[in-house]
Amino acid sequence: MSKQDNLVTAAVILIGDEVLSGRTQDKNLAFIAGFLGEIDIQVAEARIVPDKQSRIVEAVNALRPQYNYIFTTGGIGPTHDDITADAIAAAFNVGIDYNDEAIAILRERYEEKDFNDARMRMTRIPHGASLIENPVSKAPGFQIENVFVMAGVPKIMQAMMGCLAPRLKGGAKMMSRTVRCDIGEGWIAASLETLQSQFPNVSLASYPFFEKTGMGTNLVARSTDEAALNQVEAALIEMVASASSH
Amino acid sequence: MSKQDNLVTAAVILIGDEVLSGRTQDKNLAFIAGFLGEIDIQVAEARIVPDKQSRIVEAVNALRPQYNYIFTTGGIGPTHDDITADAIAAAFNVGIDYNDEAIAILRERYEEKDFNDARMRMTRIPHGASLIENPVSKAPGFQIENVFVMAGVPKIMQAMMGCLAPRLKGGAKMMSRTVRCDIGEGWIAASLETLQSQFPNVSLASYPFFEKTGMGTNLVARSTDEAALNQVEAALIEMVASASSH
Repeated sequence: MSKQDNLVTAAVILIGDEVLSGRTQDKNLAFIAGFLGEIDIQVAEARIVPDKQSRIVEAVNALRPQYNYIFTTGGIGPTHDDITADAIAAAFNVGIDYNDEAIAILRERYEEKDFNDARMRMTRIPHGASLIENPVSKAPGFQIENVFVMAGVPKIMQAMMGCLAPRLKGGAKMMSRTVRCDIGEGWIAASLETLQSQFPNVSLASYPFFEKTGMGTNLVARSTDEAALNQVEAALIEMVASASSH
Repeated sequence: MSKQDNLVTAAVILIGDEVLSGRTQDKNLAFIAGFLGEIDIQVAEARIVPDKQSRIVEAVNALRPQYNYIFTTGGIGPTHDDITADAIAAAFNVGIDYNDEAIAILRERYEEKDFNDARMRMTRIPHGASLIENPVSKAPGFQIENVFVMAGVPKIMQAMMGCLAPRLKGGAKMMSRTVRCDIGEGWIAASLETLQSQFPNVSLASYPFFEKTGMGTNLVARSTDEAALNQVEAALIEMVASASSH
C-alpha cells in the first residue's frame, strides 16, 4: 500500500483454534474488511491466534498502538475455552468483573433457572469497557479504548459490527478501479511499474487468475485521489489494449 | 491448546493487500492447516500482512524462532508489488540474485523472446535457499532454513505444498473426536470444564452454531493420546444425553 494521507487503519485479530486447525474456513476477516472499507477504514494487518491468553495479549498489545482500531472475534462465549475477556483485561492491565448492565441484558433473555454460572460468565467485562449490543443472542461484546471485542459466530459478529459502526470515524474515501484482462502478468509488469512510479499516490496491484475458462490478470488501482485514479484507469485500459495487440 | 508433547508446530504468513481489503476471500490458510494436520503438524498462529517489506520482515522474524516451520503465500510473481523474495532475503540478512536453476526452469517454459525482465524477476532467489517446484506455472518457490515461500494463487500453492511435503517431518499424531448436539453451550459449560480438568492432555473446545434448522454446539476433543480421547468422547456423549434429558 503506498503511503496516502488521512487514512484510518485497523487490524483484525481472529481468536480460535478452529480456524488454525483448518476445521473452520474463516469468513469474518473478509466481512470485517469489506464493512470497514465501506466507511473508509483500511484493514492493514490481521492475525489469527489460538485460544491461549499469552498469544491474545501479545497480539493485542503489539497492534493497538499501531492502528486506529483493533477488532477481535471469538472467545466470548460461556465455556472454559472462552478466555478473550480475561485476556483483554490482562492486555490493558485492568480488572474484570461481572458487569451490571450485561447482567440486566441477560436477565431479560434467560429465565432465572436458566441463568446458570456458565451464562453468568458471559457478563464478565473488563473495567472501563463499554458494551457492544448483540441483537442475535444478547450476550454483549465490548469496547475498551480502541479495541472492539466481538463474538466469533459470523451472524453475531456481523450484527455487532452494525451496532458499533456509529462509534467509528472513517478516513479519506478510498476508491478502487479494476481492469480485467486475459494477459499474463509477465507481459505488463514493466509498464505497470512505470505507471506506478508516475502516480505515487495510487496503489497499483496485479492479481493473476487461473480459471477453467482461461488465465489472466486483474489490475487493481486504489487511491483517495479520484482524478489520479481516473487517469490511471485510462492508462491501464490503454496498456492492456497495447499488450494484447502484440 | 493444552500443552502436549512431541507436537510439531507451524505458522502461516499470508502476504497480500487483496486479502486485507476483503476483495479476496482467503482459502489458503484452511488448505495449509488441513494439509499439515494430515501429516501431524499443527498450525499454531497465522498472520496476514500487506505487500510491504517491513511488515513481511517483522512477521517472518517474529515467528521463525517460535515454530518448527513457517509457510508464506503470495508476492512471488513478476510485478513490482511482488516483493516477498526481497523481504525474505532482508529477514535473513542474506543477498539475493538471479538463480541459475530457476533461470533454467523458466527457459524451458518461455521462448527467448517471451522471457522478459519481469519474468526474469521471478528467478531472483535469496542466497542459501533451495527451490520449491511449481508444477502449474513453473516459476519456483523456495525454502530457506525453516521458512517455505510459496505462491498466493491457491492452485499453485497447493501444488507446491505437495512438492515440498517430503521435506517436512511430522510430530505425534493429533486425533480428534466431534460430538454434535442441539444444546446451547451454556447448558454444558460447567460439565465441560470439569471434564477438561480431568483430562489435561486432551484439548476440549466447544463451537456454537446457529443454522436455519436450529442451534446447537459442536464439542471437539483433540489429543495425541487415543485412549484418553476415547474416554473423553464417551464422557461427552453421556454429558449431552444427560443435559438433553433435563
